[in-house]
Amino acid sequence: MRIISHRLQVATRGKGLYEITGQIATWLESVAVHAGLLTVFVQHTSASLTIQENADPDVVHDLNSFFNRLVPEDSRLYRHTLEGPDDMPAHIRAALTLTQLSIPVERGRMALGTWQGVYLFEHRATPHRRSLLLHLIGEE
Amino acid sequence: MRIISHRLQVATRGKGLYEITGQIATWLESVAVHAGLLTVFVQHTSASLTIQENADPDVVHDLNSFFNRLVPEDSRLYRHTLEGPDDMPAHIRAALTLTQLSIPVERGRMALGTWQGVYLFEHRATPHRRSLLLHLIGEE
Amino acid sequence: MRIISHRLQVATRGKGLYEITGQIATWLESVAVHAGLLTVFVQHTSASLTIQENADPDVVHDLNSFFNRLVPEDSRLYRHTLEGPDDMPAHIRAALTLTQLSIPVERGRMALGTWQGVYLFEHRATPHRRSLLLHLIGEE
Repeated sequence: MRIISHRLQVATRGKGLYEITGQIATWLESVAVHAGLLTVFVQHTSASLTIQENADPDVVHDLNSFFNRLVPEDSRLYRHTLEGPDDMPAHIRAALTLTQLSIPVERGRMALGTWQGVYLFEHRATPHRRSLLLHLIGEE
Repeated sequence: MRIISHRLQVATRGKGLYEITGQIATWLESVAVHAGLLTVFVQHTSASLTIQENADPDVVHDLNSFFNRLVPEDSRLYRHTLEGPDDMPAHIRAALTLTQLSIPVERGRMALGTWQGVYLFEHRATPHRRSLLLHLIGEE
Repeated sequence: MRIISHRLQVATRGKGLYEITGQIATWLESVAVHAGLLTVFVQHTSASLTIQENADPDVVHDLNSFFNRLVPEDSRLYRHTLEGPDDMPAHIRAALTLTQLSIPVERGRMALGTWQGVYLFEHRATPHRRSLLLHLIGEE
C-alpha cells in the first residue's frame, strides 16, 4: 500500500463547469496502482467540485444557471463585498457543492458510472488559475 | 492493510430517501476489518447520498419536500429537458447533496452518531435500479 | 501504513460557523504521520462541515445568513416540528453542506490552500456540544 499525490493546475475563463475527468485519468494511468481511493481536493474557497452527467453539455449549463439564480449577486445581501459582486456568491456556491471528492479506483481506473464526469466548478467571473491536489492511497 | 470493494444494488420507487445503513452494515460485518475508512459511491448523476436522522420518518419526508420546492420542475428554466421534467432537477439535487461519502470504521462498525442513518436520495420520479460501490481501506 | 483516530468535542453557542482548523492541526502534529488522508466526520445531523475563507470573518457571517434565508424557520413548511422551529431547517442545512470531509496530509500537515479554514457549521439556535471524529490513514 502506498500514497502518491500530484498537483493539477486548471485555467478557468469565468463561471461554469470544466471537465477534468481526462486529466485525472491520464495521471492515474501514469502511476501503477491497481486498487485504491483517489481524492480530488480544491485548494480554493471560490471554486469547487461536482460529479455530473457529461453526455449532454446542456446539463452543466443549466446547473450553472441554477446556481446563478439561487445565489444572487446582490451586494445588499452581503457584508463581504470588497472583492467584487461575484466573490461572496462564489463562497456560498462552493459551500453548497464540494471542496473534496473521493473516488474508488478499480483495475487502475476510477470506478465512475457510465455518464459520470468530474468537474471543476468555477464560481468567479474573471479567469483564474486553480490548484487541485490529486491524492491516491492504493496498492499495485 | 487491505482494500475490499462490493457492489450494492438499490431499487427505488420515485423521489425520496431510502435508508441503506442496514445493507452497508451487513456487508461490513461479513468482512473482517477492525479499523478503516468506508467509502460509499453512487454511480449515477440523478441520485445521491446523505446522512440524516433516522428516528422520525418525517425528517426525510420534509427534506425531499424542501428539494422539490428549491429545484422546480419547470421546463422554461432548463435547456436539458429531453429526458423528462424531473431529469434536470434531479441533476441539480444531486449536485446539492453527495455522490460520495466516507465513514470511519471502528471496532468493525461504522462510527455513526446515535441518530445518523445513511440514505440513498432518489431524484427521479419513476422506479430505478441504482448501483452503489462500497469501498473499504482497513486493517484487521 | 497505519490508522489513527481521535474524538474532538466542540462547544457551540448558536447558529454559525466555528473554525476548527487549529484544533485539527494540533492533533495532527501530535501523531507522527508524514503523508496520508485525514477525514473529519460529524456525528450529528443538525451540524455539519465546510471549508471556507478564514481571512475575512464577514464571509462566514454572510454564509450563515444565506442559509437562514434559503431554509426558513416556518413550521407550516414541515411535518417534523416537535424539536423546535430550528430543528428541521437544521437537518436541511446539514444535507446541503457536509457531514464528512477528507483532506490530504503532506509533510505532516493538512494540504489546505492559503485562505482555507475548516469549520464546524452549527445549525441549532441553542448551545450544543458536538462530537467530531478525526480519522487518519497515513505513513511515517
